[in-house]
Amino acid sequence: MSAQSSSNGRFPTAVYGERLRRAAEITADAGLDALLITPGPDLKYLIGSGADSFERLSCLVVPADGSPASVVVPRLELAALGDSATSELGLPVRDWVDGVDPYALVGSLLPQPGRTAVAEAMPALHVIPLTAALGAPPILATGVLRELRMIKDQAEIEALRRAGAAIDRVHARMGEWLRPGRTEAEVAADIGAAIVAEGHTGAEFIIVGSGPHGADPHHEVSDRTIEPGDVVVIDIGGPVAPGYNSDSTRTYSMGEPGPEVAAKFAVLERAQQAAVDAVRPGVTAESVDAAARDVLAAEGLADVFVHRTGHGIGLSVHEEPYIVAGNRIDLAEGMAFSIEPGIYFRGDWGARIEDIVVVTADGCEPMNTRPHGLTVLTP
Amino acid sequence: MSAQSSSNGRFPTAVYGERLRRAAEITADAGLDALLITPGPDLKYLIGSGADSFERLSCLVVPADGSPASVVVPRLELAALGDSATSELGLPVRDWVDGVDPYALVGSLLPQPGRTAVAEAMPALHVIPLTAALGAPPILATGVLRELRMIKDQAEIEALRRAGAAIDRVHARMGEWLRPGRTEAEVAADIGAAIVAEGHTGAEFIIVGSGPHGADPHHEVSDRTIEPGDVVVIDIGGPVAPGYNSDSTRTYSMGEPGPEVAAKFAVLERAQQAAVDAVRPGVTAESVDAAARDVLAAEGLADVFVHRTGHGIGLSVHEEPYIVAGNRIDLAEGMAFSIEPGIYFRGDWGARIEDIVVVTADGCEPMNTRPHGLTVLTP
Repeated sequence: MSAQSSSNGRFPTAVYGERLRRAAEITADAGLDALLITPGPDLKYLIGSGADSFERLSCLVVPADGSPASVVVPRLELAALGDSATSELGLPVRDWVDGVDPYALVGSLLPQPGRTAVAEAMPALHVIPLTAALGAPPILATGVLRELRMIKDQAEIEALRRAGAAIDRVHARMGEWLRPGRTEAEVAADIGAAIVAEGHTGAEFIIVGSGPHGADPHHEVSDRTIEPGDVVVIDIGGPVAPGYNSDSTRTYSMGEPGPEVAAKFAVLERAQQAAVDAVRPGVTAESVDAAARDVLAAEGLADVFVHRTGHGIGLSVHEEPYIVAGNRIDLAEGMAFSIEPGIYFRGDWGARIEDIVVVTADGCEPMNTRPHGLTVLTP
Repeated sequence: MSAQSSSNGRFPTAVYGERLRRAAEITADAGLDALLITPGPDLKYLIGSGADSFERLSCLVVPADGSPASVVVPRLELAALGDSATSELGLPVRDWVDGVDPYALVGSLLPQPGRTAVAEAMPALHVIPLTAALGAPPILATGVLRELRMIKDQAEIEALRRAGAAIDRVHARMGEWLRPGRTEAEVAADIGAAIVAEGHTGAEFIIVGSGPHGADPHHEVSDRTIEPGDVVVIDIGGPVAPGYNSDSTRTYSMGEPGPEVAAKFAVLERAQQAAVDAVRPGVTAESVDAAARDVLAAEGLADVFVHRTGHGIGLSVHEEPYIVAGNRIDLAEGMAFSIEPGIYFRGDWGARIEDIVVVTADGCEPMNTRPHGLTVLTP
């Protein structure tokens, strides 16, 4: 019932048909009977549905045996399927009314006990009764769908390019809003409007971390008034139709930075570039993380880089592959993720540089092309 | 990381201390070891936290043995607890960093196997590994917290009054935006701005169902242009600080309605009033549903009232008690729910009247006070 959920557009129907076919194949290979996908990014990926129902079970059932997928949906929410490829694909729709047990209905579509994988977004509200109805605990579909969702096709990469260009246009206009004397919240409100004006369907997150707030990587916004001399971290993004996200961080300085800030920022810039340069098919995710971390460590800044280097992006803002120590997955052409090292000096200031990149045959293509340097804004 | 999550305010700390104490008591009575509550309405209810993290586990652990509740949280998201009563209550915080297994951390706080109840909003992403770490499948906390969350205290009722008054002010201004020649989406955009301007922290849902779209109770908005003579269903609401929701529906007519519409609407108005009149402590939820349904049935309109009469409301837009056939729960003072019968004529028109009411010692207090009649708007 969100006002934002309509008119998200979608890819041609054949794209979803092929995704369903491959999802069934992978499900069979995993020794499972079916995938059970409730509203969320996996449902958007598989049939283009932006439905966001919670309380009553809506569930795409993808059998592993190659028989057609079907959609279990409350009769009252049938209209919510209108934005999906359900009817063009000819998927059977099993609607249910209050009083019917929708978990038994899903169970009736599967062998018993049903060995299934469920979407990671499925709430406990549905996981627990489904487990009872299926006679066996489900596993997470994340692992099953990982390969499929991680490798973006050309239509997805084009959507990520559009998202990147849209958020770059917002960063390009930052001088219109970001200046001393305004609060972080005031600046964030203007950025939010610009995120939509520049082509996103909504603003998913807006971080305006000024001065000491920039030292907290998960600070959002506050009523703090920006002061002359502040370093300000701006991390923003949102979806463009049909649902692919932007995510880009730049750091701004309210006046010329002092020599220490400038010197440390220059190291951060080199660290970010080293990670970008390390990306190509066949290297591990953790090696890209190490590339950024090594540059910072060489300058004594290892301890102030307190988070991973990046996260995959697509229909979700955070998805696989994660660019983090311990992730030995090999990068492959078509993977999309952020490269966003940061440095954080508690109580004082912080900085971060973030671009989305897509792995190409021999390196990567950045989705964001704004300059990486500390942008000095003078009133 | 939502731009809307900050400054939601909260009740005095003692309110949350008392809620935690009672939640632990009820958990013990249910024969469980602990409640495990991830971000969502239950977490807001118990500690006032509006955190909305998903990917990394944040979890309030409420032991049944009366020992203090504690909060497991990713170190990076510690700041998100700032809006909660965590520190004022002196709750121990167990922060964790990437590389640590947060499910094992939760498990270490409980006896093994841990008999637990989990928040219904907890995603499968966390439910499935927690089940493994606890050595026993959890049940839903909904049943455990039902009594506690259903009976609103005075502070909650006051918040619902403020929410009701705020949405009433939006309905009072409907003539500014709703007229033939504009699209549903254009009208919805204006309503959304007014929902915030009149005191909500956001617009949670906006239904503008004009003409035949009014016949679909779950229609949201579309690019349909409103026409002279249309009957238009407007169902709107959102949260006011600290998170309590409004939800009110009125039906408008673009010019004087014909005699058939007027006659059927008059029956609907009587049905809604009959349900309101039926509310008092000790009667069942289903008897209130029946009161509305009986009036419609007596006039041959039973088949066009295709949904339940109402739903509880508070920190969630939809929660217990549900006003529906089969729900034999006894109503009690302090329960808050919608009364919203509707009539739907497929392909033609529809109407709905919805107020939130709170059960009092001998009846109920409506949170919405706008006139119930079909409001005629003439350009």
